[in-house]
Amino acid sequence: MKSHTLHLTFNLPQRMGFLNITPQVAEAVRASGVREGLCLVNAMHITASVFINDDEPGLHSDYAQWLEQLAPFDASPQRYAHNRTGEDNADAHLKRQVMGREVVVAITNGKLDFGPWEQIFYGEFDGRRAKRVLVKVIGE
Amino acid sequence: MKSHTLHLTFNLPQRMGFLNITPQVAEAVRASGVREGLCLVNAMHITASVFINDDEPGLHSDYAQWLEQLAPFDASPQRYAHNRTGEDNADAHLKRQVMGREVVVAITNGKLDFGPWEQIFYGEFDGRRAKRVLVKVIGE
Amino acid sequence: MKSHTLHLTFNLPQRMGFLNITPQVAEAVRASGVREGLCLVNAMHITASVFINDDEPGLHSDYAQWLEQLAPFDASPQRYAHNRTGEDNADAHLKRQVMGREVVVAITNGKLDFGPWEQIFYGEFDGRRAKRVLVKVIGE
Repeated sequence: MKSHTLHLTFNLPQRMGFLNITPQVAEAVRASGVREGLCLVNAMHITASVFINDDEPGLHSDYAQWLEQLAPFDASPQRYAHNRTGEDNADAHLKRQVMGREVVVAITNGKLDFGPWEQIFYGEFDGRRAKRVLVKVIGE
Repeated sequence: MKSHTLHLTFNLPQRMGFLNITPQVAEAVRASGVREGLCLVNAMHITASVFINDDEPGLHSDYAQWLEQLAPFDASPQRYAHNRTGEDNADAHLKRQVMGREVVVAITNGKLDFGPWEQIFYGEFDGRRAKRVLVKVIGE
Repeated sequence: MKSHTLHLTFNLPQRMGFLNITPQVAEAVRASGVREGLCLVNAMHITASVFINDDEPGLHSDYAQWLEQLAPFDASPQRYAHNRTGEDNADAHLKRQVMGREVVVAITNGKLDFGPWEQIFYGEFDGRRAKRVLVKVIGE
C-alpha cells in the first residue's frame, strides 16, 4: 500500500469565501503514484469546510447568503454561548457543520474519479488568517 | 490491497426522491472479495446525495418537507443567483449539502459493518434524468 | 495492509448530548499498529452522529439550541410523519443529517493527523439507551 500526505495552507482575505482547490488535490494524487485508492481532503480547522460542488460564482453567493440565514454572524455572547469565551466565531462553527469537514474521493486509473461537474472547494467561515487543509492518499 | 469500482445509474421520476441502494452496494462488496476494508459510496452529481438512515416512508416524507423549508425550490433568479445561469436547481445544490455527498462504510468479515437500521440511500433533488453513483471498495 | 475494528458503546443520560471520544479513537489507532492510513469513525445508529469540532461547552450548548430550531422535537404525528409509526424521534433523524454520520481521519506517523483544535465527538439526539460507534483503521 502506498500513502502520500500533503498539508496545504490558505489565507482568504474575507470572513466567508470559497476557493477551488481541485488542482492542488489532483497534483497530490499524481505525486502519490496511486492508481486505485482513496483520497481524503479535510479542513484542519473547525471553522472551515472542504466540500464538493459546482464552480459557479452565483451558487457560491447563494451558499453564503443561505448559510448566513441558517447561522447568522453575531459577535455578542447573547445569541451564542461560545462567544462568552472572547471568540466571535460561533456562527462559523455552525456553518461548517452544514457544509461538512471533509470529502473522500475515489482514485481510479490514477485520477480523481469525478462526475462531470464535481470540483473540490475550501470553504472559509472565519478567514483573514492562514489555515490548513490535509490531503491523504492511500492505495496502490 | 484489492480494489473494486462500480458506477451505478439512477433515474428517479420525480424532482425529489429517495431510493434504497443497499442491495447494489452489498453486491459490490461481495464481488470485490474484500474481507476487511472501506467502501466509499458517493453521488457523482452535485444536486444529489448518498446518505445512511432509516428505510421508513414517513421519515422520507419528513426529509422532503424539511429540506423544502430549509432551501425552497424557486426557479426565479431573484432568490438564487445560480438561477441567473438559466438553471432552476439552485435549491437542489443547497439540499444536497444538508444531506451530504457520500458515505464511507466499514467492511468487516466481508460484509458492510452496519448497525441495526442502517441503510444506504440515493437522495435526488433534481431528478427526471439519469445520474450516477460511484462505489469504491478497497481492502484485503 | 493492516486493519483494526472496534465497536464502542455509549449511553448518554439526556436526550441530546455531546461526548468527546477522541481518547478511545486515539487508543484504537495505537492498538492497530498502523503508521500511515485512514481511520473511519461512525455512529451505528441513525439518530446519532460522529463529528469533529471544538471541545468547548458553550459551543455545544449553541449546537443544541441551533439544532432544536432547525428540527424541533415534536412527538406528535402531525408535524412528523415518521412519528405515526409510534416513534417520537423524527427530529433526531433530521438533526443527525446536519451534524453527519461519520468522520474519516488521516493517520500520519502512527497518530491522528489533527489540526490544533480538532476533537472527535459522539452526538446523541435520542439518548437514554446504549448505542454503538464503529472505529475502523486501515493502512500500514
